[in-house]
Amino acid sequence: MTGTSDKRRMTTLAIDAMGGDHGAGVIVPAAVAALQRHAHLELVLVGDEGVLREALETGGGHPARLHVHHASQIVGMDEPPAQALRFKKDSSMRVAIDLVRDGRADACVSAGNTGALMATARYVLKTLPGLDRPAICTAMPASQGHTHMLDLGANVECSAEHLAQFAVMGSILATAVDSVDAPRVGLLNVGAEQIKGNDQVKEADRLLRQSDLNYIGFVEGNDIYGDRVDVIVCDGFVGNVSLKTSEGVAELIGSYLRQEFGRNLWNRMVGALALPILRRIRERIDPRRYNGASLLGLQATVIKSHGSADSVSFGHAIDISVLTVDKDVPERIDRHLEKYLAGSGPS
Amino acid sequence: MTGTSDKRRMTTLAIDAMGGDHGAGVIVPAAVAALQRHAHLELVLVGDEGVLREALETGGGHPARLHVHHASQIVGMDEPPAQALRFKKDSSMRVAIDLVRDGRADACVSAGNTGALMATARYVLKTLPGLDRPAICTAMPASQGHTHMLDLGANVECSAEHLAQFAVMGSILATAVDSVDAPRVGLLNVGAEQIKGNDQVKEADRLLRQSDLNYIGFVEGNDIYGDRVDVIVCDGFVGNVSLKTSEGVAELIGSYLRQEFGRNLWNRMVGALALPILRRIRERIDPRRYNGASLLGLQATVIKSHGSADSVSFGHAIDISVLTVDKDVPERIDRHLEKYLAGSGPS
Repeated sequence: MTGTSDKRRMTTLAIDAMGGDHGAGVIVPAAVAALQRHAHLELVLVGDEGVLREALETGGGHPARLHVHHASQIVGMDEPPAQALRFKKDSSMRVAIDLVRDGRADACVSAGNTGALMATARYVLKTLPGLDRPAICTAMPASQGHTHMLDLGANVECSAEHLAQFAVMGSILATAVDSVDAPRVGLLNVGAEQIKGNDQVKEADRLLRQSDLNYIGFVEGNDIYGDRVDVIVCDGFVGNVSLKTSEGVAELIGSYLRQEFGRNLWNRMVGALALPILRRIRERIDPRRYNGASLLGLQATVIKSHGSADSVSFGHAIDISVLTVDKDVPERIDRHLEKYLAGSGPS
Repeated sequence: MTGTSDKRRMTTLAIDAMGGDHGAGVIVPAAVAALQRHAHLELVLVGDEGVLREALETGGGHPARLHVHHASQIVGMDEPPAQALRFKKDSSMRVAIDLVRDGRADACVSAGNTGALMATARYVLKTLPGLDRPAICTAMPASQGHTHMLDLGANVECSAEHLAQFAVMGSILATAVDSVDAPRVGLLNVGAEQIKGNDQVKEADRLLRQSDLNYIGFVEGNDIYGDRVDVIVCDGFVGNVSLKTSEGVAELIGSYLRQEFGRNLWNRMVGALALPILRRIRERIDPRRYNGASLLGLQATVIKSHGSADSVSFGHAIDISVLTVDKDVPERIDRHLEKYLAGSGPS
């Protein structure tokens, strides 16, 4: 399936085309558009063949470099991961991951149930040697550029060693996708002083001080959106709350903007003038621009799209998958983890 | 010190007039202004007598209902709590708290070092019977009204029982200050489903389902700023990260607004027109409006102002102290905790 005639290596993605809140109606157009952006991309849409062929026809036909692979089942958005793993062996999610395991695709993208995706990916693809737990990592907007943050919810309880492994993975991801030599890595805490925090972060701080990472110490919640740090490490409980809190604040400010600019005729007129400017601001903080979280620590690339993603947003998740494959992120993590784990052993 | 000739009970606050980043220069004018807002208020400014008398003179004299109480020391903003407790027995913070213990003031307000304030307040005033740990609670802006959230950093590790006690305290505070009969209480988690979360929140969920609170179950980070819930409970690590994350997002959006409205001459003109509207929005999310966190669970009211508070902001902390005293919050918590603790015992 990999085009050998191209000078540039072809990248093949398996797409769970039935996952997410909107399924094929959103994912098929996103896939077609992505093929136009990336000449070295090949896509395998996994899902109900009838539904997918119909969606392709509605969208204007079946492009080259796009394949349909039938899968008869769908994992529900609220389905318990264990149940999906056991009873949904022909789901679009599972089959897409199987294609990666079998070497028929380089990576998988899904907007489906996060828990089921993580459980299935771990079971089918396995974690990298020496690594206890994969983590979910995404880029958050910052005043200049962005900050990679992990874990965002895969691990609600983490040991210090897990946090240190997340730091290694995040640092490698940042180096690979942003071409930064020594990304600044910070540990999320409730204060910058070394006496602050719970036992896990204190011990993780000790481990990271011994590592060869560019570790800058403790950072706080507001640093996510600042420019002090490139990679922020936390447990999945804290990361998830922080991410959802951010969405809440952005929504609140958005609702205040609508209320105030709609308050009276004058404000509405000013609002009409300000609209293009406000829209640019909205675009800059638009979570759709940041859609596509990496499940780091697996033997291959798996990218999770937000369940409610629209086509533009799902397209970003595809772009991130392409970048992650092209930059060999899993292989790089594997090599560096080995070095890190050797370094952190008894000396 | 309590005016008995008034029909309405006088409220006396002891103010740590040297605490915070700006000390007396900010706190004295805030105190003078608060006396004008509250006719039943009496204030004791605690700190260096010379400094305070000078600040009063600069501000136009020494108003009635304002007293100066000398204290020779100041607790540093980064001073370890244990050190403050041991060596700063004549600090403005300690003496203000001592005045509350001695019945010479009803409550204390400080913009000083949070750790030292909590440690000193616990040591001098004691926690309510049956309560393990005080918590820091503050109101956060929501699309309608506000949400009370606790703990915001006093306890980086909490058991399920601690979280349940926080829920009781937060519920009572909301009832008292917002006059809501049965405030909706939620437990902050990484998802709304009962299988989600770490052991503490799952066990706290079980305890709260048995309580007589209006417990609505798990809530997520974005619910802080929505209208589903009146009181949100979490451990101090998560609460502090969430609070700082919110500040970060608000700052980021603010910086984007400045960048986009300053981009060129046209945008600057539109920005000038939009300025009064944008200012109103900024006021609505201004953390100064929400300044004044309650240290709940102590035998008396202690209010923590943000260290960087200006006079307006410190004034809000004074207002919250007045309200908390007038509504008998510590006494109400004491009564309800007793009931709750009796109810949660072996049956």
